[in-house]
Amino acid sequence: MSDTANTDWANTDWGALAASWIDRLAAISEPGPGVTRLPFTQEHRAVLPLLAELMESAGLAVAMDDAGTLIGRREGPAGAPTLLMGSHHDSVRQGGAYDGAMGVVLPVLALKALGEHALPFAVEVLAFADEEGVRFPTALMGPRALAGTFDMAALDLADDDGITLAQAMRDFGLNPDALPALKRDPAGVLGWIECHIEQGPVLEAEAEALGVVTAICGIERHSVSFTGQAAHAGTMPMEMRRDALAAAAELVLEVETRARETEGLLATVGTLKVLPGAVNAVPGGVEMNVEIRAPEDSIREQAGIALTAQAQQIAKARKLEIAMQRTYAQPATPCDKALQEALVQAIRATGGRGLRLPSGATHDTSAMADLCPVALLFLACRDGVSHNPAEYCAPQTMASAVRALAELLPRLPVSRG
Amino acid sequence: MSDTANTDWANTDWGALAASWIDRLAAISEPGPGVTRLPFTQEHRAVLPLLAELMESAGLAVAMDDAGTLIGRREGPAGAPTLLMGSHHDSVRQGGAYDGAMGVVLPVLALKALGEHALPFAVEVLAFADEEGVRFPTALMGPRALAGTFDMAALDLADDDGITLAQAMRDFGLNPDALPALKRDPAGVLGWIECHIEQGPVLEAEAEALGVVTAICGIERHSVSFTGQAAHAGTMPMEMRRDALAAAAELVLEVETRARETEGLLATVGTLKVLPGAVNAVPGGVEMNVEIRAPEDSIREQAGIALTAQAQQIAKARKLEIAMQRTYAQPATPCDKALQEALVQAIRATGGRGLRLPSGATHDTSAMADLCPVALLFLACRDGVSHNPAEYCAPQTMASAVRALAELLPRLPVSRG
Repeated sequence: MSDTANTDWANTDWGALAASWIDRLAAISEPGPGVTRLPFTQEHRAVLPLLAELMESAGLAVAMDDAGTLIGRREGPAGAPTLLMGSHHDSVRQGGAYDGAMGVVLPVLALKALGEHALPFAVEVLAFADEEGVRFPTALMGPRALAGTFDMAALDLADDDGITLAQAMRDFGLNPDALPALKRDPAGVLGWIECHIEQGPVLEAEAEALGVVTAICGIERHSVSFTGQAAHAGTMPMEMRRDALAAAAELVLEVETRARETEGLLATVGTLKVLPGAVNAVPGGVEMNVEIRAPEDSIREQAGIALTAQAQQIAKARKLEIAMQRTYAQPATPCDKALQEALVQAIRATGGRGLRLPSGATHDTSAMADLCPVALLFLACRDGVSHNPAEYCAPQTMASAVRALAELLPRLPVSRG
Repeated sequence: MSDTANTDWANTDWGALAASWIDRLAAISEPGPGVTRLPFTQEHRAVLPLLAELMESAGLAVAMDDAGTLIGRREGPAGAPTLLMGSHHDSVRQGGAYDGAMGVVLPVLALKALGEHALPFAVEVLAFADEEGVRFPTALMGPRALAGTFDMAALDLADDDGITLAQAMRDFGLNPDALPALKRDPAGVLGWIECHIEQGPVLEAEAEALGVVTAICGIERHSVSFTGQAAHAGTMPMEMRRDALAAAAELVLEVETRARETEGLLATVGTLKVLPGAVNAVPGGVEMNVEIRAPEDSIREQAGIALTAQAQQIAKARKLEIAMQRTYAQPATPCDKALQEALVQAIRATGGRGLRLPSGATHDTSAMADLCPVALLFLACRDGVSHNPAEYCAPQTMASAVRALAELLPRLPVSRG
């Protein structure tokens, strides 16, 4: 690494510096516990100068596009492609300081660490305005605009106060009509790299700071309702019962067993409602949801089909009615194999093991995959907690990520452009 | 049977007559679907003259005691003991026409059918004022006063309008201070016989009008809470989950299996609440109730102990916290063996099979058992439905009961007095 006037690779405490920036960003929030920073609000407005200050501290040229994405650019050789990095700066209500914001801070610090070290490509750090989808019933406008996959009909969706997305953007000084023009030419984009807290317990349990994501899991959800016969718990003999809860219990355990026995599969019953729900009534109905996630779509789809068949069999054996419907499905996003391998090597070169793991949650990376090869670097977070004021990523973990990114960039394969 | 001026045993349609009385009684109700007749209300006041008319039609002498119990008495030989029969005339809100009221109508009609046929004992038909416990958080005052088990502290319990039971009784013209004086001398009581709809599907499934109850089941209830760890359904690996719903599902199936495999045991999970209850969250907590009923207390208590141990084992295997507490316990009420046998013989003599079955629900009979030998005769009801406007007992079923009672009374063993 080259030293510059601004940075001293060996002497800078990159973890403390990252934590300091994250603290300053977290202070820009609606009142209340944790961080609440929704898109196209006064908090969004207030965070922009601080993000610009961050980017400028690494010598980046700052601009905002018409999706509200703040862009810090470091030029490369004439005609060279651009590597895109970053994450989002919005939060859920009463969320944590690291989810999103950390993914903007770390690549900026990595570029700062690189200083004037020449790279054979340009780099842009992107700070997207709306990944969480809390204010409007849509999300990922920033990356979708870049990929050319944004659905302009979403501009008409309104927040709880009846303000449409289009109106909120105009009030913010943006021109939603210009969104289609944001589409990037894939030929000019080298790839996308996002840093994010894991939001799960795997890396912490492995006592490892960093993990390379293999794919963002696809998700499908099924609503299930079993209908039997409500009855007096004292007068209905066991052998005449049509107990919807007993059927539901069988399905809960089938869902768990199938996921435990299938590599990569996650399956969960998160909601279950009993009708009529009285201590002395045999349950006549149950409404529940089954959620299935997997990094490979075929594994997820097979599980959905098999669990539907099992639920129907359970209902048949118990003489119940069943209605089971797939209500939601989103395919998996595989991460680029070459970028994964480059990240693994960079992590190993800086002292890590280079673990690989899937991502169960969706990220800006999911939308960026429609534009270019993508990579996602996970950082261990305390107790796997996120979307909560207690969310925490240790400074030494963030320092590991800065080191790995600074190690990665010079060795990145320039296969496009 | 002897003919009298009032009755013609062979030519009277006892089922139609019972149905006619029940219809007239059902008309005395708060407005709304079904029957709503709560104790010490204007509906209670209005039903008394009709019940008196019913009793007088069979030649009974009518009086009301200070518990609000309407009593129709047929004298016996001097010094002979008294057989008590009857049920209650209150209802649940929007209940049916048969629950309670039918148990007053049928013994009156049986006495009417007997006419002047001499019996070696007196008979009283009792119409109790509060079996359902809907208005006040207490019930069974009438039979408890007769048995000397009424807790005078219950007089201070208030209804939703803040009116105490004592005040409601006084407003009704009764003297609650006189309740202790209602206690009967057991030596003067031959026994208690109640007729009631089954409130379950067993007799209907057997295509049999009548059944003789062996015991009123004891009941115990347990509250159970499993506490694991709520987690993101996309980021928490299956093998690291502490899923409270999966544990609860195991217990639901254990409860069902144990009851299916244990003669006489009923066990039910009627309520189950999932926390946090989101489609994408691994459940961190479940609160549920387990109810256990059996005609023999030892069977019920063994089941409670075994299920508690199983729940603790499930929690331990899944590394969850568990809190399981028995929150309610009520012992079983065995019915008198000699009265059971006499009822079975009377049913057989009038063309029935004389089936025996336990009662899962509580009745006035439960409290009367503290005074004297008790018997409970169940009548088949349509679809096992009760506490509902759709509650229905066919006239021919009621006719079978009138015939069986009229057959029973002359052959009743006079073992007391």
